[in-house]
Amino acid sequence: MRVADIGEFGLIERLAGIVAAERSDVLVGVGDDAAVLADHEGDLLLATVDSHLEYIHFLPYLLSPAQLGRRALVVNLSDIAAMGGQPRFALVSLRLPADQQVEWVEEFYRGMRAEADRAGVAIVGGNITRSPAGVGVDITVLGRVRREHLLLRSGARVGDMLLVTGDVGAAFAGLQLAFKPRLPVPAALREELISRYIAPEPRLAEAAIIAHSGQASAMLDVSDGLSSDIGHLCERSGVGVQVQAAQLPIAAATQQVAEALGVPAWRLALAGGDDYGLCFTAPPAAVAALREEIGRETGTSITAVGEIRPAEQGRHVLLPDGQVVPLAASGWQHFGTADA
Amino acid sequence: MRVADIGEFGLIERLAGIVAAERSDVLVGVGDDAAVLADHEGDLLLATVDSHLEYIHFLPYLLSPAQLGRRALVVNLSDIAAMGGQPRFALVSLRLPADQQVEWVEEFYRGMRAEADRAGVAIVGGNITRSPAGVGVDITVLGRVRREHLLLRSGARVGDMLLVTGDVGAAFAGLQLAFKPRLPVPAALREELISRYIAPEPRLAEAAIIAHSGQASAMLDVSDGLSSDIGHLCERSGVGVQVQAAQLPIAAATQQVAEALGVPAWRLALAGGDDYGLCFTAPPAAVAALREEIGRETGTSITAVGEIRPAEQGRHVLLPDGQVVPLAASGWQHFGTADA
Repeated sequence: MRVADIGEFGLIERLAGIVAAERSDVLVGVGDDAAVLADHEGDLLLATVDSHLEYIHFLPYLLSPAQLGRRALVVNLSDIAAMGGQPRFALVSLRLPADQQVEWVEEFYRGMRAEADRAGVAIVGGNITRSPAGVGVDITVLGRVRREHLLLRSGARVGDMLLVTGDVGAAFAGLQLAFKPRLPVPAALREELISRYIAPEPRLAEAAIIAHSGQASAMLDVSDGLSSDIGHLCERSGVGVQVQAAQLPIAAATQQVAEALGVPAWRLALAGGDDYGLCFTAPPAAVAALREEIGRETGTSITAVGEIRPAEQGRHVLLPDGQVVPLAASGWQHFGTADA
Repeated sequence: MRVADIGEFGLIERLAGIVAAERSDVLVGVGDDAAVLADHEGDLLLATVDSHLEYIHFLPYLLSPAQLGRRALVVNLSDIAAMGGQPRFALVSLRLPADQQVEWVEEFYRGMRAEADRAGVAIVGGNITRSPAGVGVDITVLGRVRREHLLLRSGARVGDMLLVTGDVGAAFAGLQLAFKPRLPVPAALREELISRYIAPEPRLAEAAIIAHSGQASAMLDVSDGLSSDIGHLCERSGVGVQVQAAQLPIAAATQQVAEALGVPAWRLALAGGDDYGLCFTAPPAAVAALREEIGRETGTSITAVGEIRPAEQGRHVLLPDGQVVPLAASGWQHFGTADA
């Protein structure tokens, strides 16, 4: 059986069985945005790692080295944010072709350093080695969270609202534009959307408010694709969901790209990852206060896009025309398996 | 300027300047076997990451998947040991070609898991992604050390003895045999030495005794190459050294390989890395008690192979014939730069 036959998530599920160990100091191992480790009295340790490989996770002609350094760090900061935590330390493992320019590497590090400083993160070590094929970087980020602020994927309850921060689908629309330079979209919009793909913001401040409120029940970041990520949350929480396509907060620019591509905007938004916004659940009564505080403190909107239902009702999307269709896991998967 | 022009260590030095930050919670950043983080009251957090890439760090035809999984973890456990710490958690970032067999990946994980269990380590997460070229794995290991047991590369003092655990050069001799199958060496020795390369032992128990003794002044593990690693220790400690080639503990099998290769055994031992033994410094008066305790508790020998001298006396090797030559950094460097 080839890896491509079962896909990234199928493989992870098998391997999780091999590594699973009952240990009182491992609160969450494989399966959430980050591992949660009770390595000490008091605060919990969070640990996450993500890869950025040339032509798989990024297009080298699209990102400057500084932008790449920043983005490779942001995707990990976002995982720590999604647990309700604060990032503290980063380790950088870099794989470089022997003929890579040193100036390129230094710019990459400067971009990473600038973002690390913004997030209060110290880059404390790593590894550098020769690469047989293109640039690759793995960043491990360690963070801290107070036990009472920890937000897992597994806490969603029936009756909770499903919410997202900011708008959805913009980064994915930007990626489509990067692949299809001749798509008829005005240059200003093109630039705006591509920059959403290149330079996502880690939602650290928003996540802190959500976690400190004590109101949210589950959270993760939108990285694989919104429908896929909602699926992860439902899977881990043992719940169903009805997403309302008409409620998805989609920027006008993203809608123009969907139109130019000839697909409904909601479909593009549900398929799209790379936004690194937050997706979370909270009881209906908590939404207004959260919206007010997050808006006031960060300027970021939050939008209810669906409702958590009992597992036996399944995972569905209510389309704008009233049809109800299954929530396809239409996000990005490595190894190119068919959507689940 | 290309990366190959300045080499791995030249590049790390430049990048260390970009990431260096004055933070009271970062006791040691770039430059030792692991980062040392005061993330809490009490114990210190240790964090390290290392890469294993096909055809760069390992030969896929030489190691079974389980052996590879074990070895990829051991090189990181060894870094935690070299700080005087205990490993606790591991994150695994795996890059796989789409046509990799799932059974291969599962065997890889089983090998890793067996070693993790032996070392008391929980595998708590990671990342899996498609690789454009061969298998690659990065493992991050987190550990703990009590502040009073921490052993850095930087603590060696003039007059200290330079010591190593076990014998040196065997893994490197094994690697030579793997590359040169026609070298006239008996089959049993060949197998023994190749297995020293394939399946190094992390010296966790020995490191714990050395750290708990309170007698050692500096420590690191032998990974890049013994002379190169001794150079790192001297550099970070601001000291010189005289290594006595005749004192190097070289197994009879390693000596046979050196003979077959037509090089002096001490040269092979000094050039060789991959042993993952410990190299440490301690005052002469402490050596006998350390030797006795380590021998009794672990069965491992320790050997004094040189003496720490003032920096202005430089770094030298006293050869068996009485000649004194500079300690060349003859270990392995990525990017293939000339030896420093």
